[in-house]
Amino acid sequence: MKLLSSVQCFGGLQNQYEHVSDALNCTMQFSVYLPPQTQAGQKVPVAYWLSGLTCTDQNFATKAGAQRVAAELGIAVVMPDTSPRGDGVPDDQDKAYDFGLGAGFYVDATEVPWSSHYKMYSYIVDELPALIEEGLPVSKCKSVFGHSMGGHGALTIALNNPALYVAVSAFSPIVSPMQCPWGQKALAWYLGNNPEAWQRHDTVALIRSGAQQLPMLIDQGLADNFLASQLKTELLEAALKETGYQAEVRYQAGYDHSYYFIASFIEDHLRFHARYLK
Amino acid sequence: MKLLSSVQCFGGLQNQYEHVSDALNCTMQFSVYLPPQTQAGQKVPVAYWLSGLTCTDQNFATKAGAQRVAAELGIAVVMPDTSPRGDGVPDDQDKAYDFGLGAGFYVDATEVPWSSHYKMYSYIVDELPALIEEGLPVSKCKSVFGHSMGGHGALTIALNNPALYVAVSAFSPIVSPMQCPWGQKALAWYLGNNPEAWQRHDTVALIRSGAQQLPMLIDQGLADNFLASQLKTELLEAALKETGYQAEVRYQAGYDHSYYFIASFIEDHLRFHARYLK
Repeated sequence: MKLLSSVQCFGGLQNQYEHVSDALNCTMQFSVYLPPQTQAGQKVPVAYWLSGLTCTDQNFATKAGAQRVAAELGIAVVMPDTSPRGDGVPDDQDKAYDFGLGAGFYVDATEVPWSSHYKMYSYIVDELPALIEEGLPVSKCKSVFGHSMGGHGALTIALNNPALYVAVSAFSPIVSPMQCPWGQKALAWYLGNNPEAWQRHDTVALIRSGAQQLPMLIDQGLADNFLASQLKTELLEAALKETGYQAEVRYQAGYDHSYYFIASFIEDHLRFHARYLK
Repeated sequence: MKLLSSVQCFGGLQNQYEHVSDALNCTMQFSVYLPPQTQAGQKVPVAYWLSGLTCTDQNFATKAGAQRVAAELGIAVVMPDTSPRGDGVPDDQDKAYDFGLGAGFYVDATEVPWSSHYKMYSYIVDELPALIEEGLPVSKCKSVFGHSMGGHGALTIALNNPALYVAVSAFSPIVSPMQCPWGQKALAWYLGNNPEAWQRHDTVALIRSGAQQLPMLIDQGLADNFLASQLKTELLEAALKETGYQAEVRYQAGYDHSYYFIASFIEDHLRFHARYLK
């Protein structure tokens, strides 16, 4: 784990690291915001931010404005990349934005040729936290949040590992990849024709199958161009209603799918996580 | 003035416009944040943000996190581009980042070939405010701030027009282009061998020549790689001391030249401007 850059921000440090990932079988970069409390030698809890399609570790770091609130609350924020990277990593044949590089979908691929690198689920759940907890001044207390494909990642990862995460939240998540074009393409290519594997990576299916209760907050913009075709928040609402699973789902009038939406409500999300991160 | 995009952010609108500029003799884009108060029909005061070398109207919009505070305070923020643009606009022969496209230096060029387009001073002082005051829900009360080359632009424009701006502030400004490599190159090429013109665009020279007092705030990071060679804040401090000109110059330990520095202190600057913007 090699420090590539370190820039002071709101009294803490916005750092970028590089490391060789065993799970992904390639060299990866990720970013971490370390709040000022860590400079006083304190170990702080960590919120993992999972980004959406086409993003790297930089989008959230530069655009979300999360550092101000993370500094105040004493929370580290880890910003992983969204797929394996490098010349040896296979990409979508048509270089489509919704599959391959920048589009790992937070699953462990089982299909050739993707299975040699696309193991983002194991990377986020196991490898990266182990690395970070060993090398940085953080505790083992963690939560997860994300946007769009990363909102899907945050929700499914938390629901599959309720003992590992104290809270989960999402902006504009893909709530049911099994029921939308982005998700159907990704699940079919990464996981093949395996209904059980698909369900493990579908928030709606996980809720319906009796997932354990976790603190959960979701924000969805009503001017989001992807709401009707890809995100389908109403499917999650129906699953919550039928199962009695408790989650706060907020529709925000006038907001679209962009980082301007995330920036507008990131403070709410960090304060929500802070209630559970100790 | 044509609206290119409009995105909701902190209850207000982050808009991008295109227009044909007479001053610059080309088509320009600029961005404006309109706070929520304007949707209630209120006319709000305006802070003009001038960006640094290589920037467009987008850098501040996406990275500074200014919208949150502007929304609270009811201030519109205008984000112009940093030079004329387009195929017909001459650029530095070597495509250097410090001259030509993205590097207008907020002067009116008098030298061929630059004088046909590079009139950023007139664009910022006259043309753009007239356009904005006619087309948007803003008052004529305005202030100006900026970063690096844009900090230089903000300070020199305010000092040359104390009746037009109620306050001025800067991050990491080039305080004396006459005394640093970036500035010497730009002033020589845009303005030729004309000492009087150079002095009109040099903050230190303007202060020394008895500029009228304006509310002025300056933040400078002490880990800024350009401090010793290009920014030279100490020259401004000396001029302030000798003349008795009142300005708050703050050195911020550990901060560099990036937008992470700007984001960390933009709230202070907007609150400073708000004390004078009515």
